[in-house]
Amino acid sequence: MERHFDEELKGLNEKLLKMASLVEEMISASIRSLIDRNTGMAEDVIKSDDKVNMLEIEIDEESLKLLALHQPAASDLRFITSAMKINNDLERMGDLAVNIAERSVDLIKQPQLKPLIDIPQMAKITQQMVHDSLTAFINKDSELARQVCRRDDEVDKLNEQVFRELLTYMMEGPKNITRAVDLILVAKHLERIADHATNISEDVVYYVQGTMIKHHIEEKKKQ
Amino acid sequence: MERHFDEELKGLNEKLLKMASLVEEMISASIRSLIDRNTGMAEDVIKSDDKVNMLEIEIDEESLKLLALHQPAASDLRFITSAMKINNDLERMGDLAVNIAERSVDLIKQPQLKPLIDIPQMAKITQQMVHDSLTAFINKDSELARQVCRRDDEVDKLNEQVFRELLTYMMEGPKNITRAVDLILVAKHLERIADHATNISEDVVYYVQGTMIKHHIEEKKKQ
Repeated sequence: MERHFDEELKGLNEKLLKMASLVEEMISASIRSLIDRNTGMAEDVIKSDDKVNMLEIEIDEESLKLLALHQPAASDLRFITSAMKINNDLERMGDLAVNIAERSVDLIKQPQLKPLIDIPQMAKITQQMVHDSLTAFINKDSELARQVCRRDDEVDKLNEQVFRELLTYMMEGPKNITRAVDLILVAKHLERIADHATNISEDVVYYVQGTMIKHHIEEKKKQ
Repeated sequence: MERHFDEELKGLNEKLLKMASLVEEMISASIRSLIDRNTGMAEDVIKSDDKVNMLEIEIDEESLKLLALHQPAASDLRFITSAMKINNDLERMGDLAVNIAERSVDLIKQPQLKPLIDIPQMAKITQQMVHDSLTAFINKDSELARQVCRRDDEVDKLNEQVFRELLTYMMEGPKNITRAVDLILVAKHLERIADHATNISEDVVYYVQGTMIKHHIEEKKKQ
């Protein structure tokens, strides 16, 4: 029975990592499709959505089954509940990569509004955050997870900057408007991907240390 | 022990309903602040965010404690895991109500761009979806939950309509742009609130019937 349970936990972990690398690949391809103006690449991202959705359901069902059949305690329980939360965040990240790819398909049909500088920079930080949050989970590295949370502000600031710059493009002429709105949405989706990486990192800290750090609760409890 | 556990479950349920009614009130006030151009009301919504965040953490901690100490099975287990998911969705809805209130504060400072028609209509359907998803949870009413999921398309369509109409306002002149972007974001936030109500309803169907209906999985399995 125990060995069986351990194998099921391992299986759950593997499925979660499979989903994580699929979602990482989708995020990366969605941004590359925009930078390289490659419609086929964007369409592949859109097609991957079904696969992520199926994985989400499988992981959720397996987690619930493990909880129900084995009623685990302590660290196994924390592992399973963290896996369920991370699963949820990954699925939404997948959706956001699809949203970026959809904007990309639209944008490629039109001439380039401006050279992209801040968005690739935002994408780079965001992808690193996603990758590090999952590495932190795999290695039970709560210090790395806390670093990810601290980088979220950087992405928020870049998003603000992109937003303000694109507003000025819109003011310059109506022909810029749809493209500028598309790019504002791309930046907004990236910012939300970074939020989900932050959520995952918060869950990793809880999983490893049993401490909640959401909403800066530690500082607030100290006050 | 058993009686104690039942009381703790009841306590968890009560806290979740308290959070739900706070979030419903925030959504309603954020939209009313925009329609009535009432800055004070919007600021109250923004201030409520801390309360929702604290409740989210309390509900999460209590759920995990119940899982760890009592290792519940069957319907109690489904209740607790559903409570954790609903908790997560409610917290994000609270964030989105805050985002709407922030746009509202901005918009009130400027003259009204246009009479609001579609946004209040979207808000009405969305609020009803939120309310019904929670009623479905309280009454274990999976039929009502499924109805909520079906209404999500209506909100998506209204969002599309709002988006297209506001683009035309932007084209008419640069002075309209910031207000139109603000209103596009309000509609987008409402659409995401409706998505979370749909998530809650999907969780209710799982809680009541043990069936996953996410991503139209039932139809896909039949194919």
